[in-house]
Amino acid sequence: MSKLPNVTTSIFTVMSKMAAEYNAINLSQGFPNFPVDKRLTDILARLSTENVHQYTPMAGYPPLMNKIAKLTQDSYNRTINPETELLITAGATQGIFTTILALVKENDDVIILDPSYDSYESPVLLCRAKPVRVALNDDYTPNWERIEKACSANTRMMIINNPHNPTGKILTENDFIQLKNLLEKYPDIIVLSDEVYEYITFEEKHISANTKDFLLNRCVIVSSFGKSFHITGWKIGYTIAPEYLMKEIKKVHQFLVFSVNSISQFAINEYLDVVDVNLLGKFYQEKRDYFQKLLQNSRFELKPCEGTYFQVASYAGISDEDDVTFCKNLIINHGVAAIPISTFYSDHKDQKLIRFCFAKDDLTLESATKKLCKL
Amino acid sequence: MSKLPNVTTSIFTVMSKMAAEYNAINLSQGFPNFPVDKRLTDILARLSTENVHQYTPMAGYPPLMNKIAKLTQDSYNRTINPETELLITAGATQGIFTTILALVKENDDVIILDPSYDSYESPVLLCRAKPVRVALNDDYTPNWERIEKACSANTRMMIINNPHNPTGKILTENDFIQLKNLLEKYPDIIVLSDEVYEYITFEEKHISANTKDFLLNRCVIVSSFGKSFHITGWKIGYTIAPEYLMKEIKKVHQFLVFSVNSISQFAINEYLDVVDVNLLGKFYQEKRDYFQKLLQNSRFELKPCEGTYFQVASYAGISDEDDVTFCKNLIINHGVAAIPISTFYSDHKDQKLIRFCFAKDDLTLESATKKLCKL
Ligand SMILES: CSCCC(=O)C(=O)O
Ligand SMILES: CSCCC(=O)C(=O)O
Repeated sequence: MSKLPNVTTSIFTVMSKMAAEYNAINLSQGFPNFPVDKRLTDILARLSTENVHQYTPMAGYPPLMNKIAKLTQDSYNRTINPETELLITAGATQGIFTTILALVKENDDVIILDPSYDSYESPVLLCRAKPVRVALNDDYTPNWERIEKACSANTRMMIINNPHNPTGKILTENDFIQLKNLLEKYPDIIVLSDEVYEYITFEEKHISANTKDFLLNRCVIVSSFGKSFHITGWKIGYTIAPEYLMKEIKKVHQFLVFSVNSISQFAINEYLDVVDVNLLGKFYQEKRDYFQKLLQNSRFELKPCEGTYFQVASYAGISDEDDVTFCKNLIINHGVAAIPISTFYSDHKDQKLIRFCFAKDDLTLESATKKLCKL
Repeated sequence: MSKLPNVTTSIFTVMSKMAAEYNAINLSQGFPNFPVDKRLTDILARLSTENVHQYTPMAGYPPLMNKIAKLTQDSYNRTINPETELLITAGATQGIFTTILALVKENDDVIILDPSYDSYESPVLLCRAKPVRVALNDDYTPNWERIEKACSANTRMMIINNPHNPTGKILTENDFIQLKNLLEKYPDIIVLSDEVYEYITFEEKHISANTKDFLLNRCVIVSSFGKSFHITGWKIGYTIAPEYLMKEIKKVHQFLVFSVNSISQFAINEYLDVVDVNLLGKFYQEKRDYFQKLLQNSRFELKPCEGTYFQVASYAGISDEDDVTFCKNLIINHGVAAIPISTFYSDHKDQKLIRFCFAKDDLTLESATKKLCKL
């Protein structure tokens, strides 16, 4: 009997594979198709011949850890101790998995909002704990009343994702006030805040859990250089947690992977001296605006997008098909791959919505939207 | 309450850190200190500017997977289907962890030999399963009678490590006959064979589980390029399993890490065209012989070493200290770091034995042994 009987091939794998088979433009899985910053690849090329090929220490390459502490200071005015509160992971996915495995026990409840990114539920199930899904409001804001109703003395963790994949929503000051009120009532709940798109926000900056005093002692924050530096393949992320939680996370990390890719850590360490993460929002805002403009005359209805590099679109005016069928036909008949939003819902209910990734060069966005405007 | 209450900082971390603090020669943690093959670093440097920076597919970069299938064919005359029987992992450690998490359930028994490498027990405990430690014979060969006594209908997995860290032992044909007899009596037991030192053997080649027909359908084999190509920091390993087991392993992998470092996978893929893994045994045999010769006039008594790059040595003629104390004093007073063998025993019982890593350039071995001969 399988320990994860309901897990099938991930939709990201299915769609990227199908896109390749049909030679379609791939706006499904979230990864950029433009070149990586030459400054970073130059660093990597130069480092290749240096002494960067053996194990880094278990929790990460110390100079890189110091730089991340500085980045957290500069970005959020939060002081972390890199030795006790920081861990370098093989991507944010490993940070999330390791955190859940370390902190969630059998029969615990874990609050997961609905829709949400697909990698929160399985680690909870592997702990024999219970994912408690709470529907977002129709505009994808959290429904704090419903969340509170779902909480109990049994609730161990609440997972938030801010900016939110797939909806592009960011949490407001009011959301954090509600969260604070809630947590005051439930002193045992810890928060796992997935902030991998932390630097990809537009009109409004996202509010990081790093900036909220009431969270510092009970929140694990996960992020990734994959999204911020257009290097999703490198699989270098980091996790910030107060020492008493980080101690447990490191215990699992030590046996799960021991340490992570050394060359990439050395390269990112140097790159952090020259790159400005604050330019990222503007860069992707232009992409979003351009993509939206190119789809203006299409029959897709575009939802608001406050962050991430994803655009949710309704095709209700175009087709009655369920979203998985629609996405498959979109590849086969129109040569564009997207992700069906039903994937992100616990009940996989069709919403007539799909998600496009606009982290693509302009030519790709132009060719794709030209095809999409034909529908 | 911790889910891993007995886990402390790993001895590898403790000793490497202490070695650095005291400026000692580090023969503790297993990693080479000589340069990586220039052909490999040249490939890496060239690839840096190419399109190698985004997610590879979940199970690995397909061309690399084909090369590993070919390597398995060439080395062991075993045909594997890379699409269904192979997974690229973030080092062998992740392969081991993922396999155990995917296949071991609550209350299962898992046979782990004693002594053994330190990363088998914690994943078993995280599954709420029971590690059943079975002592090796005094000469570090498996005691098949004791192993059989430890097996029951409750036994889900048996973990073997061949060549064996820390003892350098390899399994014999007779061991495999005994294993076959045992498995015939227990049709539900699967074998996890950790073969990360598969190409580092000396007078005798090791017998891979890949060559044993009776194992193919019930064995998961874990290996790593870190050991074979002197790139422990890259964290690229692979896991081979029959499809019905690999399906479950991939389900966990998908959420544990999703995919692994892309650049490293691209580089190893090219390197496999030019490197000859069969030269590795001779290379390390010369190191072993040189290291042993240099210690000939020391008061350490060296144990036989058939594989791996580790040499076990008794200091019983030198000191009465327990091995942890002896290793600490060895760093402080003599400037050489080693690993106490008690670490590898479930009861941490002192054996007056320590482990040296001889994967070091000749100059390092000479300086270290000069110090060791003074004891
Ligand atoms: C790890 S594959 C999915 C990539 C991603 O973050 C997304 O497309 O949502
Ligand atoms: C992952 S740190 C330990 C390295 C190693 O394999 C060993 O020293 O035994």
